[in-house]
Amino acid sequence: MDESLPCSGRSVFAVLVGASQLLGLTAVVLTGVWMGKYHGGYAWDGSAQEFNLHPLCMVLGLVFLQGDAILVYRVFRNEAKRNIKILHGIIHLLALIISIVGFVAVFDFHKAAKIPDMYSLHSWCGMITMVLFCLQWVMGLLFFLFPVASSQLRAVYLPVHVFCGLLLLVMAVGSSLLGITEKLLFSIMPTYSLFPAEGVLANVLGIVLVCFGAVLGYLITKDDYRRPPNPEEEALSVHFKTLTEGGTPATP
Amino acid sequence: MDESLPCSGRSVFAVLVGASQLLGLTAVVLTGVWMGKYHGGYAWDGSAQEFNLHPLCMVLGLVFLQGDAILVYRVFRNEAKRNIKILHGIIHLLALIISIVGFVAVFDFHKAAKIPDMYSLHSWCGMITMVLFCLQWVMGLLFFLFPVASSQLRAVYLPVHVFCGLLLLVMAVGSSLLGITEKLLFSIMPTYSLFPAEGVLANVLGIVLVCFGAVLGYLITKDDYRRPPNPEEEALSVHFKTLTEGGTPATP
Repeated sequence: MDESLPCSGRSVFAVLVGASQLLGLTAVVLTGVWMGKYHGGYAWDGSAQEFNLHPLCMVLGLVFLQGDAILVYRVFRNEAKRNIKILHGIIHLLALIISIVGFVAVFDFHKAAKIPDMYSLHSWCGMITMVLFCLQWVMGLLFFLFPVASSQLRAVYLPVHVFCGLLLLVMAVGSSLLGITEKLLFSIMPTYSLFPAEGVLANVLGIVLVCFGAVLGYLITKDDYRRPPNPEEEALSVHFKTLTEGGTPATP
Repeated sequence: MDESLPCSGRSVFAVLVGASQLLGLTAVVLTGVWMGKYHGGYAWDGSAQEFNLHPLCMVLGLVFLQGDAILVYRVFRNEAKRNIKILHGIIHLLALIISIVGFVAVFDFHKAAKIPDMYSLHSWCGMITMVLFCLQWVMGLLFFLFPVASSQLRAVYLPVHVFCGLLLLVMAVGSSLLGITEKLLFSIMPTYSLFPAEGVLANVLGIVLVCFGAVLGYLITKDDYRRPPNPEEEALSVHFKTLTEGGTPATP
C-alpha cells in the first residue's frame, strides 16, 4: 500500500483491489461451471468439449490475467520498478500462453466439425484483440524489459503502451460478452427468453465481466493510485541501454 | 486548438478529432443503411420497422452524441468553461431524448409482437447503461450546471463523474456490439457463415464502433489534451453556490 495515500484512500484502494480479484475469479469459475455443467466438460479431441476450453482460457488468460498483469503496477507501486516490470511481463506471458491454447481449441473444433471460421463479429473482435495483444507483448518486451529502443523513443511509446493495455483489456471483455451472446443463441435460442438457468448464469457472467473491467479501469486510470515518481530510483534503475547511453529510463 | 500544445501535437489532435467524427458518422450511416436496406426501413406502428429505430437511435444517441458531448471538453478546452458546460449538458440531453425514443421503440415492438423483454445479455447491459446514463445526466446537472452541492462535494464527485462518462461510453459501444450480434443471429443465422453482404456490413459497423470508442478513449484520457488549469477563470467563474460560498468551483 502507498504511504502517500491517506488512510481512507488506502482502504478504498484495498477494497477495490479485493473486489476486482473476487469479480475476476467469479468470472473464471462461472465460465468453468457453464461449460462443465451445461456443455459436457472438457477434452482435447476436436469435439465440442475441446471448444469448451475456448471460453475458459479466454476469460482466464485474456481477461483475468491480463487485468492482473496491469494491476501489479498499482498494487506494488512502492516496490522496485524492475521487479514489477518482470512480474508484469511474466503474468502477461502466462496470459498469452493460455489465450493461445484457447484460440487453438476453437480453431481445432471448427476444423473437426467443418464449421467455417472468422465470419462473426465475435471472431473479428476476438482476432483483432488477440493480434494486438501479441504485438503489445512483444513491443513491451523490446521497449521496456530488454530495451532496444532509445530512452526518447521509450518515453514517447510509454503512454501509447499504457493506453493500449487498457484498450486491450476492454476489448477482451467486449469480445467475451459477444462470445457469451453467440454461444447462448447457438445453443438455447428457443428457450433463452424463458430465463433458463443456463441463460441467467451466462448473463450474470457477462455482468461480472463488465464489473471486473469497470473496477480495473477505475484502479488503472485514477491518478492517486499511480506509481509516484521516484527520481532516485530513476537514476539508479539498471538498464543495458541506459547504462550505455547514460539516459533516464522510461517505464510503464 | 490549444496553444499550449506543440504544432505536431495540435496536428495529431486535429486528425484524431476528425477521425472520431468520421467514424461516428459512418457508424450512424451504416446502422441506417443496415436497417433501411435489409430490414424494410422505419415506422412507428409497433411493427418490425419500429424496432429498426432502436439500433439507429442507440448508435446516434448513446454512442455518437454521448461521445461528442464528452469531446467538447477537449475540442473547446480554451473556451469559457461555463459555455462548454452548457454545450456538454445540451448534447447529453439530445443524446438522452434520442436514446429514450430508441428504448421505447424496442419495448413497443416487443409488446405488439408479444416478444418477452429483458432476458438477453444485450438487454441487461443496455438497460444498465441507460439507467446509469440517466443518473449520470441528472447528477451532472445538479452538481455542475445548477450546483446544489458544496464545492468540496463537487470536487470529490468530479473524477467519479469523468470516469463514469468514459465507462458509460464504453458500455454503450459494448451494448451496441451485443445488439448487432443478437440481430444478426436472429435474422441471418443460417447464412451468416457464408459472408452475406448484410453480415459483413454489420460486422464492419461493429468494428467502426470499436474504433470510434478507441479514438474517443484516447482523446479523453490523454493528459496533453486535458483542459489546462486556469486559476483566473476559476476565480471569475460564476456559480450561484460559489458566489454565496466564496469557494472555488469544480468543473469537469
